Amino acid sequence: MELELARQLAKTNDTKIVLLVLDGLGGLPNPETGRTELEAAWTPHLDRMARQSNCGFTVPVGMGITPGSGPGHLALFGYDPLVYQIGRGALEATGIDFDLLPSDIAARGNFCTVGEDGLIIDRRAGRIETERSAEIVKGLREIKLPGVEVFVEPVREHRFVLVLRGEGLSDAVTDTDPQVLGAKPLLTEATNAEGELTATLVNQWASEAAVYLADRAPANMLVLRGFARAPDWPAMPEVFKMRTASIAHYPMYRGLAKLVGMTALDVGPTIEDTLATLKANWSSFDFFFVHYKYADTAGEDGDFDTKVSKIEEVDAHIDSFLELEPDVLIVTGDHSTPATMAAHSWHPVPFILWSKFGRTDLCEAFNETSLQTGVLGTFPAKEALPLAMGHAGRFRKFGA
Amino acid sequence: MELELARQLAKTNDTKIVLLVLDGLGGLPNPETGRTELEAAWTPHLDRMARQSNCGFTVPVGMGITPGSGPGHLALFGYDPLVYQIGRGALEATGIDFDLLPSDIAARGNFCTVGEDGLIIDRRAGRIETERSAEIVKGLREIKLPGVEVFVEPVREHRFVLVLRGEGLSDAVTDTDPQVLGAKPLLTEATNAEGELTATLVNQWASEAAVYLADRAPANMLVLRGFARAPDWPAMPEVFKMRTASIAHYPMYRGLAKLVGMTALDVGPTIEDTLATLKANWSSFDFFFVHYKYADTAGEDGDFDTKVSKIEEVDAHIDSFLELEPDVLIVTGDHSTPATMAAHSWHPVPFILWSKFGRTDLCEAFNETSLQTGVLGTFPAKEALPLAMGHAGRFRKFGA
Repeated sequence: MELELARQLAKTNDTKIVLLVLDGLGGLPNPETGRTELEAAWTPHLDRMARQSNCGFTVPVGMGITPGSGPGHLALFGYDPLVYQIGRGALEATGIDFDLLPSDIAARGNFCTVGEDGLIIDRRAGRIETERSAEIVKGLREIKLPGVEVFVEPVREHRFVLVLRGEGLSDAVTDTDPQVLGAKPLLTEATNAEGELTATLVNQWASEAAVYLADRAPANMLVLRGFARAPDWPAMPEVFKMRTASIAHYPMYRGLAKLVGMTALDVGPTIEDTLATLKANWSSFDFFFVHYKYADTAGEDGDFDTKVSKIEEVDAHIDSFLELEPDVLIVTGDHSTPATMAAHSWHPVPFILWSKFGRTDLCEAFNETSLQTGVLGTFPAKEALPLAMGHAGRFRKFGA
Repeated sequence: MELELARQLAKTNDTKIVLLVLDGLGGLPNPETGRTELEAAWTPHLDRMARQSNCGFTVPVGMGITPGSGPGHLALFGYDPLVYQIGRGALEATGIDFDLLPSDIAARGNFCTVGEDGLIIDRRAGRIETERSAEIVKGLREIKLPGVEVFVEPVREHRFVLVLRGEGLSDAVTDTDPQVLGAKPLLTEATNAEGELTATLVNQWASEAAVYLADRAPANMLVLRGFARAPDWPAMPEVFKMRTASIAHYPMYRGLAKLVGMTALDVGPTIEDTLATLKANWSSFDFFFVHYKYADTAGEDGDFDTKVSKIEEVDAHIDSFLELEPDVLIVTGDHSTPATMAAHSWHPVPFILWSKFGRTDLCEAFNETSLQTGVLGTFPAKEALPLAMGHAGRFRKFGA
């Protein structure tokens, strides 16, 4: 559904929607047993919930397309991930939960190694340790620019974020990253008149940074790319007429939630922390995005058994979600992360929607095989929220 | 998926994809037995493959829409058949595997019969035999035009193709075919300034052709329609970053493959020829479009039993495809051709995708009933290649 249509249909109500995202939820059969992570897991609560839910699979971006975390989540928030794309610099800032203002310009930075001739010999500065990188960033913060504020934030290993804040800035500037070995870092250039001030400032900053870095090999140079503003998107509360909150511990998911206008609630790392935060804020919001990271972490590590146990951990707490008596409880993922692939994948994602207005559904258990008998079939993830809105009585009738 | 997105995501890999198209594959129950062609056929190898595959149906163009061979195949090549449409003249040239240059102008020609008053009394010249038509075409080839090369190629019965090759030609000209009985063939007219040279040349050619044809009744006149250039589409090798080859014996399918930039390999008419060509070229290409015509031919003839036996012929050779160890093997059709209808139909087309990264699937056999339990459900045929690209590790992740 287009957000514009959602905006036309959305109405307020006193119903509650909980979107519980088990990151990297879907899997593939373990070759030794023929069973997926969900089939191997002991999930009596999710199985019971599946029997009482409408079941199926979501396709995050498109058939055959492996999504990153950004598009996977945006789709679940009702934002078409092919339409709502985030510039690289803004995504990097989002990933560290940096609060970009609309006029800020963010760029992704890499420390790199140059030889005596100034040519890049390692684009990632030997993937220096995050601690060392953060130390170098402290020095870079001393570089001042006229008329604008400068933020330099460490990310992980050789990565950092550069943010310029002030009047008259623009993202119409080119990368300084030549993206190849054996070339010098480039000067940034304005791609139109509006970019000229920004280009001048960035080149001045990069030039002073080069002096500071000169004796800090392997991080003796840096490159910048993906200059971008924070996306100026319609906000969920305004489009869907709900008070929306995220309960996500990791910075990337807090950042994504804030991009679409959710209130990012503070929460600890455990599922008990998650439930405590949910309960404490139950009356203050209508929609809760609840993020559980650890299924994906285990999947990415190729650790089948840990992924199984993390799913079981969520299962053991399902009744705590239901006891809050939400009008709609969705359990799904942002993408599949089969432990056998140790990576995100393109496979459709298990999806169950619990509501008192559900159809009878033939699905008997919460796993990739049983869900194939679900009434919802396989559908675009961006339709999940509209579906929830319908079940929560939050959409008007379309037409008379 | 848009081709532009595919282009952004595609990456090279050493994996192999085989798309085996059984032309006209899907069917309907025989009223006498209640079984479709696929249900009547003895297909132990395809059934085993279905049990190991991800299964479903494709919709070539849209629900309820019966596709021609062009759109049916283009969809399987990843080209949205509603976006990538071929002008009639270019399609006719494609159908005889005529190599159109980008600047060529092709038209579909019909021999027709006119009375003494010059009015058309038979738009198809009594469907004269192909041999006779080819004989007449030889005479037409003697007509020369100033500054351009002229090709006249017989098609079947009363049909032929006219191609003009040279500088300054345009497809901005109207048909000479009035499309009704009792009217005279028209003069072509330019629809804009660019079409004027072409209109002059076509009228000169048609006028000389009329003289030549005058005593060759029933083919004593001709009409031309659908002046068109070869489509200038993105090429598969460039969009999908694969070395692509067609193994198709019939000119129409070779022509379609060449339109999207595939290398059309020479191959004999039998399935043994097909496999020999596939094996001989295995290391030289990444993607093979393998075309098997005879299921459609039997279907169009309304010959249920022959369609069954042709499907069985393919079944007996399935293991030869698998023994090549492709990373992805798809078996599907370009459209359904139920023998009970003796025509193409709009019914979704059986589809199975074999890959080591497939999900568990409930489908137990390769037929229109069992495939309904497949994990892929019913999906647009244009998504088949993106799905194969994902399973072959040939798409990058979308977004970070």
